[in-house]
Amino acid sequence: MRAVAIIGVGSTPFGKLEGMGILDLAVSACREALAESRVPREKIQACYLGNFVGERLASQGALAGMVVNRLGLTGIPATKVEGACASGGIALRQGLLGIALGLYDFVLVAGVEKMTSSPTAEVTAALATAGDEEGEMRTGLTFPGAFAIITREHMARYGTTREQIGLVSVKNHGLGASNPKAQFRKPVTLDEVLASRLIADPLRLFDCPPISDGAAAAVLCPAEWARDFHPKPVRVLGSGHATGPATLWEMEDITSFPATVKASREAYQMAGVTSADVQVAEVHDCFTMAEIIATEDLGFFPKGKGGPAVKDGQTGPEGEVAVNPSGGLIAKGHPVGATGCAQVYELVKQLRGEAATQVRNCEIGLTHNLGGTGVVSTVTILGRM
Amino acid sequence: MRAVAIIGVGSTPFGKLEGMGILDLAVSACREALAESRVPREKIQACYLGNFVGERLASQGALAGMVVNRLGLTGIPATKVEGACASGGIALRQGLLGIALGLYDFVLVAGVEKMTSSPTAEVTAALATAGDEEGEMRTGLTFPGAFAIITREHMARYGTTREQIGLVSVKNHGLGASNPKAQFRKPVTLDEVLASRLIADPLRLFDCPPISDGAAAAVLCPAEWARDFHPKPVRVLGSGHATGPATLWEMEDITSFPATVKASREAYQMAGVTSADVQVAEVHDCFTMAEIIATEDLGFFPKGKGGPAVKDGQTGPEGEVAVNPSGGLIAKGHPVGATGCAQVYELVKQLRGEAATQVRNCEIGLTHNLGGTGVVSTVTILGRM
Repeated sequence: MRAVAIIGVGSTPFGKLEGMGILDLAVSACREALAESRVPREKIQACYLGNFVGERLASQGALAGMVVNRLGLTGIPATKVEGACASGGIALRQGLLGIALGLYDFVLVAGVEKMTSSPTAEVTAALATAGDEEGEMRTGLTFPGAFAIITREHMARYGTTREQIGLVSVKNHGLGASNPKAQFRKPVTLDEVLASRLIADPLRLFDCPPISDGAAAAVLCPAEWARDFHPKPVRVLGSGHATGPATLWEMEDITSFPATVKASREAYQMAGVTSADVQVAEVHDCFTMAEIIATEDLGFFPKGKGGPAVKDGQTGPEGEVAVNPSGGLIAKGHPVGATGCAQVYELVKQLRGEAATQVRNCEIGLTHNLGGTGVVSTVTILGRM
Repeated sequence: MRAVAIIGVGSTPFGKLEGMGILDLAVSACREALAESRVPREKIQACYLGNFVGERLASQGALAGMVVNRLGLTGIPATKVEGACASGGIALRQGLLGIALGLYDFVLVAGVEKMTSSPTAEVTAALATAGDEEGEMRTGLTFPGAFAIITREHMARYGTTREQIGLVSVKNHGLGASNPKAQFRKPVTLDEVLASRLIADPLRLFDCPPISDGAAAAVLCPAEWARDFHPKPVRVLGSGHATGPATLWEMEDITSFPATVKASREAYQMAGVTSADVQVAEVHDCFTMAEIIATEDLGFFPKGKGGPAVKDGQTGPEGEVAVNPSGGLIAKGHPVGATGCAQVYELVKQLRGEAATQVRNCEIGLTHNLGGTGVVSTVTILGRM
């Protein structure tokens, strides 16, 4: 397989972006990535685009074709991929494989979602399609509900405390405050988290990500040519993509997602590194507890030790592994189809030394994207070149 | 690139399939394809699934992960791809590339749609997301409306007659009558077509495909091993995937789809054949006129001669090129995300000599899948081994 590098990234701000439709968002992020890469447009040979609920919330399907047409790239093969909230990570994976296997030289990868124009009940219903409709969601379960059950089990089994869980939110809102692209730019205190509105007991408002609009994009090429296009290219060292049980009742242990474990093992093996080599990670904190579980499933901490690690500051910007320096889904925002690409955007900035909250001496970073309650996950490992 | 073969196919019947949800449909087609291929399940390394409106009409996202989980293949990377009504063709393309480029040895490819449980107005709105919502569909244009405009232009420019157009429906309903998987199993006369209810002038009810449930699937492996798994494997000779303008007003000529022309050129070149070498084709007759345009864009007939070719019987089972021997979308049915895979199902049966309406001495076949009004197209060329 050929070594692959990222030579340009782009991202819209995340938030309630009035006046920008789903195509405007995707096109904006793609234009920024293309401009940064300095790749002439006629060299782009393919596009992979991640999107989850665009047909429901933005009445827009065939999105990959629409986006390349708006970009003036009409003609090239363009593929929308969807794996619920892991759609962006899957798009990156497909673009990476296209170059690694020698099919393409220059590929545009993007993720996008437009969510804030729809009533909240419609957004909740659209997001619930990430669960098995017949097998579980038809009972009335929502995603906050599912993660509340998971949170209770983690607390009962490992003694994880409400304080430890709340500190994930405090950390991520604090980091989001420094990120000019983040939806929430205001620090919160633990007291504010614990006093915020109850959503699904024990999860409160500040344990959850907002409803967001946004897009992110990246341009990829063979690593050997990368310096011709960008002075600080970032190498894709490893990638994993795996599926897991689709429902809570099929999981042997609801405090761990087998898809994350499998995808990360594949990515570590391909990269020839271990979790101990990772200095910075953007993980899928779709709820506070999801960040704690991710840090365990990815091997940063032993099972059940993710909660204490937050309290001890081990996941802060100066900690053992800086987790979600962007503010994560909780503070940066979670335009669901864009998230996997936005994680890559943040890590590329980190590895170039250009991040809003810069993690010192980082050489290797990891992104982790999750769909549903773990039905699919992607993990990507990036390194400085 | 490695040569790739299809060693098993499966398809549900198409129609209003009461009591079968979207996962049941996909699982049923996949099980049939897996059983035919005799590949042990643990050898399947990846799944690509085409689906278009599952999130809207079946409240089911993350569909590829859900399907592999139900099949007992939990763990393998599974990717849903979407390009409106070309989703199934894109799924086949991705599976083919995975093996051709050496990433995987055994891949499951499928397409599925569940449409008949929703009110017709919801189906029409969901299908309209295949157009550019902001740029065109928001005006109120529907797909029957768009193809009516295209039909009028083809008639005005080339003298194509209402009779020639109606004969596409007569041919396809006649062929569907013999296909046990088809939704419509009754021949129609030209008089019946021309007297059927007006949908969008000049298109009438029998010029349109029905709303359908259904799924189709295929198992792929390297051609060199194919005979170990099936006595009559079918070789994938060529594949093309291209995008085109997303709206009618961006097209230089609305009687031709550049995405089809480009995808077919790529596929012919990869296969080392020309349109004259193709004896049987399943083309995207989402409306009668779409079949005529496809036969021109694919190079079977010169531009403007597709209408007379139907009248002269050149597209019938005994004609120069047998077009849509399955009955096509119009009679077999059009579960939109499944169609690209169902076309492959029919061609594999044809090339094995097992089809319901068997085309004599066919060695090379072509499938053509189209999304929207040509925003994306895939073409696959298959051959006897």
